[in-house]
Amino acid sequence: MISEKMQVQVQNSSIIRAMFEEGKRLAAIHGAENVYDFSLGNPNVASPEEVKKAIVEIINKEDALSIHGYMNNSGYEDVRAAIAKSINDKFSTAFTQDNILMTVGAAGGLNVIFKTLLNPKDEVLTFAPFFGEYRNYVSNYEGELLVVPANTINFQPNLEEFKKKITPKTKAVIINSPNNPTGVVYSEATIIMLSDILREKQKEFGTDIYLIADEPYRELAYDNVEVPYLTKYYENTIVGYSFSKSLSLPGERIGYLVIPNQVADYKNIIAAANIANRILGFVNAPSLFQRVIAKCLDAKVDLETYNRNRELLYNGLSSYGYQCIKPEGAFYLFVKTPIENDIEFCNLAKKKNILIVPGTSFSCPGYARIAYCVKYETIEKALPGFKALIEEVK
Amino acid sequence: MISEKMQVQVQNSSIIRAMFEEGKRLAAIHGAENVYDFSLGNPNVASPEEVKKAIVEIINKEDALSIHGYMNNSGYEDVRAAIAKSINDKFSTAFTQDNILMTVGAAGGLNVIFKTLLNPKDEVLTFAPFFGEYRNYVSNYEGELLVVPANTINFQPNLEEFKKKITPKTKAVIINSPNNPTGVVYSEATIIMLSDILREKQKEFGTDIYLIADEPYRELAYDNVEVPYLTKYYENTIVGYSFSKSLSLPGERIGYLVIPNQVADYKNIIAAANIANRILGFVNAPSLFQRVIAKCLDAKVDLETYNRNRELLYNGLSSYGYQCIKPEGAFYLFVKTPIENDIEFCNLAKKKNILIVPGTSFSCPGYARIAYCVKYETIEKALPGFKALIEEVK
Repeated sequence: MISEKMQVQVQNSSIIRAMFEEGKRLAAIHGAENVYDFSLGNPNVASPEEVKKAIVEIINKEDALSIHGYMNNSGYEDVRAAIAKSINDKFSTAFTQDNILMTVGAAGGLNVIFKTLLNPKDEVLTFAPFFGEYRNYVSNYEGELLVVPANTINFQPNLEEFKKKITPKTKAVIINSPNNPTGVVYSEATIIMLSDILREKQKEFGTDIYLIADEPYRELAYDNVEVPYLTKYYENTIVGYSFSKSLSLPGERIGYLVIPNQVADYKNIIAAANIANRILGFVNAPSLFQRVIAKCLDAKVDLETYNRNRELLYNGLSSYGYQCIKPEGAFYLFVKTPIENDIEFCNLAKKKNILIVPGTSFSCPGYARIAYCVKYETIEKALPGFKALIEEVK
Repeated sequence: MISEKMQVQVQNSSIIRAMFEEGKRLAAIHGAENVYDFSLGNPNVASPEEVKKAIVEIINKEDALSIHGYMNNSGYEDVRAAIAKSINDKFSTAFTQDNILMTVGAAGGLNVIFKTLLNPKDEVLTFAPFFGEYRNYVSNYEGELLVVPANTINFQPNLEEFKKKITPKTKAVIINSPNNPTGVVYSEATIIMLSDILREKQKEFGTDIYLIADEPYRELAYDNVEVPYLTKYYENTIVGYSFSKSLSLPGERIGYLVIPNQVADYKNIIAAANIANRILGFVNAPSLFQRVIAKCLDAKVDLETYNRNRELLYNGLSSYGYQCIKPEGAFYLFVKTPIENDIEFCNLAKKKNILIVPGTSFSCPGYARIAYCVKYETIEKALPGFKALIEEVK
């Protein structure tokens, strides 16, 4: 028999993934081209050509033993140094390889850092709406995720409520910008205020509060919007990064943690994170792709494809009377559902072969997430369905 | 500050890995060719040519989005079907893709299955000597690893002691054959007796006891010794496999779990394992390498290289008066240390630039593990040191 915790998990099994399976089922019935699946953040823009070139070059030129072998659990030294340099060049930071730990994607990195930091009952704060997996990542280590309610005016963090929720048990705060599911980029003003609050509360309680910046969407920002690099604003910041979206490599599970020297208890954190990477069973980030991304640190997927989708979807929905913030980053649009019950709305959408995810999954009922990392034509063909939907429920 | 659990981990940080770092330090001083590092199970036989061919073929012929994208958390359906067929062909089993879950190496797979099965305080049994990470993998989910003392006569499991240690709280038994650190293959007679005991105890206590077969060394067996396929002997068997050694891909983190239909609570276990793979942060096994291994299921590393090492090391040590069982599999030799204190012996060895791991790390003091996945010349050059060592301490 499975564990009690997993019994609950099996019962509640992720709505997002269930939707993914539902998409495949509908596609089998109606044909893939007639199902408009906006449910999953699976990039539809291919990896840049540099990735392919890097793989072929490494495979042809380097020694198989060193390509596929074990290395330090933190990752290859030269890869970590290249990443540190790349961050330094972009953000005028001063990291070295000793600040970088290669991880099995951002999901692996977040598990590593929570394993490193959390004692049972430690509190982790996050802002609604948020990626539902945070709840699991925190509960894996017996921590408690506490949610600051959404600021639905502009989806910047609700800092008033945040301040009230920090206690002596607050061990960490996890934020995600550009945000999944809203596409909102947390502004520099927000980050400065957030940092001030954290410093004030650290002083008040005599604690260290770690700010964990989950940044898989960092490179996906439109209209030249600036995404602040958080280690520059708050000392106790740890960054989780992934190449899943920036290089369209989600299946390859490659990312890293940045653990700056000025983080409280740095030496133990870096040692413990290295061990956590090992004992959680990751052992190390996949070796070939460590080398591949080191050769592709300046490469980017074609952002314009996502941008065109964004414009088409946002303009279409707005013209039909949907209320939504124009996303500044990532590839999600978070729309206010025209009826209060978002789950019901998503079920109505499914009847038009449109798959979207209820805001409830992100602790923000009354909204729905539309992942626009799909073909342009999929949006074109789905728009009439969205139009019909809002007309039906009005 | 890091968590209390991780504070203990940092203090005790794996002796094996520390040795790895020590090897690098000594190599920097004395030159890599003058340090005889037998401390780590890092294959030194390159991946078969099929691996390179498969990578290039996939990269050149397949679509980048589908090579590097997300798939079902369990892995690609066609890859799982190919693996099921390959097992069926070899062992006359009847698995389908629904019995296979692709994992981030065997370490990832074991974490997934323990997360799936264990409630806090559940007991997991294993046989000394054993891979020390089992302790971490079980404690990650608040389980308790109980160790059956070694049978130092032939290093087959001590079944008398085993029987006594099974209680109503025994949720699982984890075994590893070919064994790390002894190189011993558990015989069919052993497996039959072990299975009978498990069935008897299940009946006595009215419980399900899962047998977890950790099989990263399955393909590394010498002299045509047979490694029994455990699902055929005991219904509640779950197999953890890895391509780390069979294809020399340890850095790539690719393996799978076999969860047969006849396992008690199969449906929930497969569903929960799929979810565990996701929420632990693995998400899925690396996508390119899923496709690669599917094309290499009949490929093998050159076993003869390991075999030559085995013969040279075993014959050399035996001729100097060391006591050891000739390993039948894997690439480890477990030698009785000529002085009782194995840690002290390993420190003496280090003074001769020989790095080996004390048996204490495997819960079997008085022995040391020599990993012979090294160059033939390394063994040749180290043998005089081993000879001098035993002469010094006699």
